[in-house]
Amino acid sequence: MGPHPAVAAIRLAVRRVLHDVLTEFAEQTERTGRAPNAPHPELAEAGAGRRRPALPERTDTPLVLVACSGGADSMALASALAFEARKLAVRAGGITVDHGLQNGSDTRATEVAGRLTAMDLDPVEAVAVRVGHDGGPEAAARDARYAALDAAAERHGAAAVLLGHTRDDQAETVLLGLARGSGIRSLSGMAAASGPAGRYRRPFLQLDRQTARTACLAQSLPVWDDPHNIDPAYTRSRLRHEGLPALEKALGKGVVEALARTAQLSRDDADALDTWAAEAGRDVRDDAGRLECAKLHVLPPAVRRRILRRAAIEAGSPAGSLFARHIEEVDRLITGWRGQQAINLPGRVEALRQGGRLVIRQS
Amino acid sequence: MGPHPAVAAIRLAVRRVLHDVLTEFAEQTERTGRAPNAPHPELAEAGAGRRRPALPERTDTPLVLVACSGGADSMALASALAFEARKLAVRAGGITVDHGLQNGSDTRATEVAGRLTAMDLDPVEAVAVRVGHDGGPEAAARDARYAALDAAAERHGAAAVLLGHTRDDQAETVLLGLARGSGIRSLSGMAAASGPAGRYRRPFLQLDRQTARTACLAQSLPVWDDPHNIDPAYTRSRLRHEGLPALEKALGKGVVEALARTAQLSRDDADALDTWAAEAGRDVRDDAGRLECAKLHVLPPAVRRRILRRAAIEAGSPAGSLFARHIEEVDRLITGWRGQQAINLPGRVEALRQGGRLVIRQS
Repeated sequence: MGPHPAVAAIRLAVRRVLHDVLTEFAEQTERTGRAPNAPHPELAEAGAGRRRPALPERTDTPLVLVACSGGADSMALASALAFEARKLAVRAGGITVDHGLQNGSDTRATEVAGRLTAMDLDPVEAVAVRVGHDGGPEAAARDARYAALDAAAERHGAAAVLLGHTRDDQAETVLLGLARGSGIRSLSGMAAASGPAGRYRRPFLQLDRQTARTACLAQSLPVWDDPHNIDPAYTRSRLRHEGLPALEKALGKGVVEALARTAQLSRDDADALDTWAAEAGRDVRDDAGRLECAKLHVLPPAVRRRILRRAAIEAGSPAGSLFARHIEEVDRLITGWRGQQAINLPGRVEALRQGGRLVIRQS
Repeated sequence: MGPHPAVAAIRLAVRRVLHDVLTEFAEQTERTGRAPNAPHPELAEAGAGRRRPALPERTDTPLVLVACSGGADSMALASALAFEARKLAVRAGGITVDHGLQNGSDTRATEVAGRLTAMDLDPVEAVAVRVGHDGGPEAAARDARYAALDAAAERHGAAAVLLGHTRDDQAETVLLGLARGSGIRSLSGMAAASGPAGRYRRPFLQLDRQTARTACLAQSLPVWDDPHNIDPAYTRSRLRHEGLPALEKALGKGVVEALARTAQLSRDDADALDTWAAEAGRDVRDDAGRLECAKLHVLPPAVRRRILRRAAIEAGSPAGSLFARHIEEVDRLITGWRGQQAINLPGRVEALRQGGRLVIRQS
């Protein structure tokens, strides 16, 4: 008798990602002549005289870490990583982050670390972080968490860090982006691979939360329900427990899947348009590197506005404070020219039209 | 004392659109030598011998119709059209469509026509239509309505037909598109101008529903509340009365505005990508017009998939049945070639790879 379908599903999702990690690890090893995480660089240098460097030792297998809160999603992820890593040339470890935001969070982190060790993960670490205030409680906790995970990945020379985000998390992220109304990039949710050199991997992005929870039950894994997840003080929690269910009631089941698909399509579209804007942004400049209004004028608005936004950011305008309405105003210097004055942008940046050229500079 | 702010807002919105209509009307008259709606084509031909054709008579002013259900949005729109048309070289008329879906709908249509006439609109028509069943009750009613409006516009030689869709309608449309999960085109909502030669105009697309309602109150205009708008059997009604309020509660006020902005940004992005795909679609063909896999491979996925989708539709696959998963499967013939068999697409269309070429054809 095979494993429970939910357990099979989480393992398959992790196996696919581990295969990718292994392939990339082998490619990088072949390209550089040493394993990306090889402990002794001299070993590789010894082979530098030969045409083709020696393949790394079998011990130079990639280390994959799982970031685990102790909740159902990441406990399921840890269990699948532990299972699959045994069958592949992959070492598996785990990190749990103690945000220090609740009483007893340190005890809980130790507990989670114990569970990861019991799964035969090694190394396992519980890392305490100090959460600041920048950008609100959710953003501050996220920033502190990723900083700790980055540091752990560097410290252990990890090839990848697995994150337990599910399709439901993705749907919530799309809706949060939609509420910003700042275009398709903010609708593209979380990437399957992100961070430095694609370090962060999200094997469960196509899997629903219920599957992860069922897999924990089927494996008798204890899970911890973060009270923040049901605290209506948090936007994401309100969305999860009120907003999304109401939307499903109105629009029918399948909303979560549709939102996740929207994320993928939007991401591809945003990438393509960024590529276009980067290329076109070079073609619309004169010899002195200034933007030519006539050349900007004939571009599609979506491409032109991306060029203008990028130029404003390069001039020193902070991306987070630069809204669509700012860019629209700058755009009117091109498409609705009637002798306007300089446009003030965040970060003491101004945009003005001079002799058929658009000048964007910090004052 | 000026008008109530809500009345000033609806008038300004209509004035802007009328200015656009007048400008286009003048341009078209100058280009063709006759007013687009000129009743006697011979008049214009009489001037064909001269270098510059005679300007049309003052009586050749454009006719603008308002589509009015008797609800607050379109009654506000009709009142603003009547007011502004008096000040501009524009004739204003109104059409109300009797869908015949409720008892007494004919009496109500006559009533609405009477109200339009009382606003000095001329011509005014109540048109009865027969609603079919294709695509569900909402789509069938919409199809019948637009067919009737198209016919009325042709009959009267109207330059434009104004529709009362508000920013709230736009937000609902974006959410309905989101539920389809079929990409950014379906997120782009309703256009400010659409239909044959941009006939349909939506002056209130940036205005909220409450403003239209307040404007009716301020002008003591009687309005009719369509019971369908609060009938939970209709998706849009559920969205309006349950889905959107819950989303606003979770994400904060400003969701409607963010959704409307998303529509505009998505529309511009989708247009730009369609342009790119149309151009690239020509460049990736060999002399015989067949798609070359190697050239397709180097394109961004968003552009490549648009080319594949377009090719499938041109081969006879019905756009409405062609989903993202179909195109993804065809895409794997390019990006994940391992000798796959022909892919079957809706409409007896098949896609297969032959000697480095992608063949998409009806069987």
